[in-house]
Amino acid sequence: MHALAFIQDMAVIMLVAGVVTILFHRLKQPVVLGYILAGFIIGPHTPPFGLIHDEESIKTLAEVGVIFLMFSLGLEFSLRKLFRVGATAFIAAFLEISLMLWLGYQVGQMFGWSHMDSLFLGAILAISSTTIIVKALNELKMKHERFAQQIFGVLIVEDILGIGIIALLSGLAVSGSVEPGAVASTLGKLSLFMIVALVVGILLVPRLLAYVATFESNEMLLITVLGLCFGFCLLVAKLEYSVVLGAFLIGAIMAESRQLLQIEKLVEPLRDMFSAIFFVAIGLLLDPKVLVEYAWPITVISVVVVLGKILACSLGTLIAGNDGRTSLRVGMGLAQIGEFSFIIATLGITLGVTSHFLYPVAVAVSAVTTLLTPYLIKAADPLALWIGRWLPQPMQRVLGIYGEWLRSIQPQGEKAVLAGMMRRILLQVGINLSLVIAIFLGGAYFAGGLAGWLSTWIADPDLQKACIWGGALLLSLPCLIAAYRKLKALAMLMAELSVRQNQAGRYTQPVRRLVSEFIPLLSLAGILVLLAALSSSILPRGELLLLIGLVAVVVIAVLWRWFIRVHSRLQIAFIETLEQDKGGHH
Amino acid sequence: MHALAFIQDMAVIMLVAGVVTILFHRLKQPVVLGYILAGFIIGPHTPPFGLIHDEESIKTLAEVGVIFLMFSLGLEFSLRKLFRVGATAFIAAFLEISLMLWLGYQVGQMFGWSHMDSLFLGAILAISSTTIIVKALNELKMKHERFAQQIFGVLIVEDILGIGIIALLSGLAVSGSVEPGAVASTLGKLSLFMIVALVVGILLVPRLLAYVATFESNEMLLITVLGLCFGFCLLVAKLEYSVVLGAFLIGAIMAESRQLLQIEKLVEPLRDMFSAIFFVAIGLLLDPKVLVEYAWPITVISVVVVLGKILACSLGTLIAGNDGRTSLRVGMGLAQIGEFSFIIATLGITLGVTSHFLYPVAVAVSAVTTLLTPYLIKAADPLALWIGRWLPQPMQRVLGIYGEWLRSIQPQGEKAVLAGMMRRILLQVGINLSLVIAIFLGGAYFAGGLAGWLSTWIADPDLQKACIWGGALLLSLPCLIAAYRKLKALAMLMAELSVRQNQAGRYTQPVRRLVSEFIPLLSLAGILVLLAALSSSILPRGELLLLIGLVAVVVIAVLWRWFIRVHSRLQIAFIETLEQDKGGHH
Repeated sequence: MHALAFIQDMAVIMLVAGVVTILFHRLKQPVVLGYILAGFIIGPHTPPFGLIHDEESIKTLAEVGVIFLMFSLGLEFSLRKLFRVGATAFIAAFLEISLMLWLGYQVGQMFGWSHMDSLFLGAILAISSTTIIVKALNELKMKHERFAQQIFGVLIVEDILGIGIIALLSGLAVSGSVEPGAVASTLGKLSLFMIVALVVGILLVPRLLAYVATFESNEMLLITVLGLCFGFCLLVAKLEYSVVLGAFLIGAIMAESRQLLQIEKLVEPLRDMFSAIFFVAIGLLLDPKVLVEYAWPITVISVVVVLGKILACSLGTLIAGNDGRTSLRVGMGLAQIGEFSFIIATLGITLGVTSHFLYPVAVAVSAVTTLLTPYLIKAADPLALWIGRWLPQPMQRVLGIYGEWLRSIQPQGEKAVLAGMMRRILLQVGINLSLVIAIFLGGAYFAGGLAGWLSTWIADPDLQKACIWGGALLLSLPCLIAAYRKLKALAMLMAELSVRQNQAGRYTQPVRRLVSEFIPLLSLAGILVLLAALSSSILPRGELLLLIGLVAVVVIAVLWRWFIRVHSRLQIAFIETLEQDKGGHH
Repeated sequence: MHALAFIQDMAVIMLVAGVVTILFHRLKQPVVLGYILAGFIIGPHTPPFGLIHDEESIKTLAEVGVIFLMFSLGLEFSLRKLFRVGATAFIAAFLEISLMLWLGYQVGQMFGWSHMDSLFLGAILAISSTTIIVKALNELKMKHERFAQQIFGVLIVEDILGIGIIALLSGLAVSGSVEPGAVASTLGKLSLFMIVALVVGILLVPRLLAYVATFESNEMLLITVLGLCFGFCLLVAKLEYSVVLGAFLIGAIMAESRQLLQIEKLVEPLRDMFSAIFFVAIGLLLDPKVLVEYAWPITVISVVVVLGKILACSLGTLIAGNDGRTSLRVGMGLAQIGEFSFIIATLGITLGVTSHFLYPVAVAVSAVTTLLTPYLIKAADPLALWIGRWLPQPMQRVLGIYGEWLRSIQPQGEKAVLAGMMRRILLQVGINLSLVIAIFLGGAYFAGGLAGWLSTWIADPDLQKACIWGGALLLSLPCLIAAYRKLKALAMLMAELSVRQNQAGRYTQPVRRLVSEFIPLLSLAGILVLLAALSSSILPRGELLLLIGLVAVVVIAVLWRWFIRVHSRLQIAFIETLEQDKGGHH
């Protein structure tokens, strides 16, 4: 790209975007739509002529805009928030995404679009727009109401699921078909990668940022943040995931840093500049001819988005035990599509699997539903009143009984405490096992390179394998021991609960001990078999395996306490990072 | 540029820059040198291999970095500051730049370098580095001492002169020779452009920014600022000046905005990110072979820079009436080259007029002198003491007498007030005449287009010319009248002072009236002749000119008061903008 042409493009983009967004702000419409309109005006499809010289460079900067956009979303996301999100968010988000994926696919098929176009349409319709909702609630001054909090919960779950959808679609587009096994494998690897990245990242990154922050230089902190952000995106891209995932994950990791507020302030102008380019670039791609040609699908899909999302989200919120008014307000707040849809539509173009019309259609549907959002939010209350008046009496009674029943089955008092403990233990076991699995998968992945490196000392390939496998086992021992101890605690808890004195009589103690010893050992055996299967390519022969096992037993016996100390230190560091104060973030 | 390659480049740049700058910060060395070293490490000239894929894109972003760098310098510059800067700054800056231009040229010739290389070397050595000095003084905690204030004054004058040097070099590189007439014409046009841009910009831009700021959206303010910045750079580039000038000017204009602090905070991360790319890109160009080959010139030039700048700046400060210690501290603080030198060296490459070795030599000299800066500042006090002890008595007495003489010739009391008034009047006349000249030059420049547009109504080309010239005259009448009135006030003041009662006796009043009427009329006639010469291409024939003159006289007679009111309103708006509080800026 030539410098002057680039400056000219930037000048045109920023000037037109500035004027149009001021206009849109005065008309009380979302600024994002202003950007898209600005892109449309200066784009190659609108008269008098294309004002952009170097479209390729603008597209690259738009990609950087996506990175900053997702990085900011990640900064606003936080694991603590995800843990605190109630059942409402999970149920509503799952229901919404499943229904919209199915509806989108069906609508695509109805219009006779290809298999892949229909699939992408479903994905495009699945996720609501955080940007639009936050701005709309801000402008309506409803950000602190209860339904708004429920909406933010749904959006957090949606972000995670949206990341999953993007990873799945990238995989599907390459393989070309939807096989349940492949989907499960993709999702499994994705979850594994996310857990490992989050655990390792939260252990390292906030400490690094705290160190850099001691220099009290905004410049150095920014450069470090940018280095980590782009570096992690690159790593994720090399692992053949989308950079969107990378930007979101590194944002979520930095959200656990004590410097969060400072980082947000430093990144905000960069995000605003590059995301403006991203949204303008979306407008550049809009061809009015396509919009006219596809006016009918755009109308149908817009109606499907609004009705489908209101139905799914309201129902999900209602099922989770909220009152009708709140449920309707949540549903009507979430009834639009936005930045995730653009990213998914762009993905389709980049992978070359979707037709040319899908992108403009997605943008048009987003524009229509975005414009409707404030009116829908404002209409929710009158509509709830109206429904309440016209809903038949029996129906209302059923809802009331359902709510009471739901409250009655929720664990209370001692039971709630126990349920909380069990959830916590299972989470810890899950994280530790994920780390173990990642170590073994990593060992298998890098086996070729490691073997080559080992070959200077060890000639026998079987011995090399044994070394790699043994090394992986040694490295994962702290996590394995921790998982075993947590499982034992869980088993004791379960033994206490399930084997009652009045049933087992004088055998109570022995039976309880049996249960509490047997369950963790059985689980551990299961885990080892699973590991052996996952690392089959580097699993050594029988006698060597036996030898490794013996060595491991000796190591465990000698270093038991040390392993526990190392692990508990890491765990404390991790939890401290999660629970430290980030300076009153909203 | 491909998105992933670009992300990879960004990741490499930011990660290496982050690590190296942290290292440099720990070693208490300037971060800027860290960036350059980072670029050198990842560059194509250093083993093991070039880590940058898309050098072209990085260069473009480096150019954007220059824009943000100069824009930030402009934001920190301010006309108020320039007006307040004392004689010290002007004398030291002029002396330094003249001496360094001459010394640089001579050194280049001594090494047998080409005419153009020597000229660029002079320019590269002329301007000291604001970035380096501010950081060094910050770290030494000397920012608020008297000599530091003197240094900042010199830097402000240097910025303006540096901009002039860049404009001159661009012109020279194209024409290939240094003709006094061409230089004067270039500098004249440049000054005219700067004055007009500043006056018009300060009347419009702060008002626009205040309007956008009422929306209380950082995003919209940033987009507007970026639009104005890139837009103005584009305009300046179309007028065939350097974008460096444009970025600096629009920054200086925005420095008069009430939103200055907010704008600085929004632009800071963008500047830090892009200027990091700029400095890394400088390192990318460094070829160690050239550095070794040119080790001797680098040494000589570094010594010349340090000694030359210390001598020129200390002498200038001393001449302006400061004590020896302060003078030496000012001189030793300014003894390095930095960002302006890189920009000028880049200009040489872009224009294709300098040899390949000049750029690495400039960077190496900058690195050496930058590394010396903190030590020089710290050494200034001991050196001043040492010189004081060893300076011969007569020499010290001469200095003392000079200082007293300087104080004795400075206007005091009533005279100082009068001198201030006269300076103010001359400044106002100068600005108004600049605007008038710009209007006529603009008329001549756009005459072709305007004539074409007029031809639908007026066929005769002579009549068209008359219309354009008349229009320019009408447009410039408020400024002409204001200039005339200011000149009259000046003439009255001078008559009062020069025609004394005891000399002219009873003719005092008539002679005074003669002087106070005669001088402004003579000046006005001179101005009109100058305007006629400048706009000779659109000057109509004799009788038409007479007609226009008659119309002008009638218009002036009828609208005299209205013209004065319009002009004074604009003037009040301008001065209010200059003098409003920008929220406690440093």
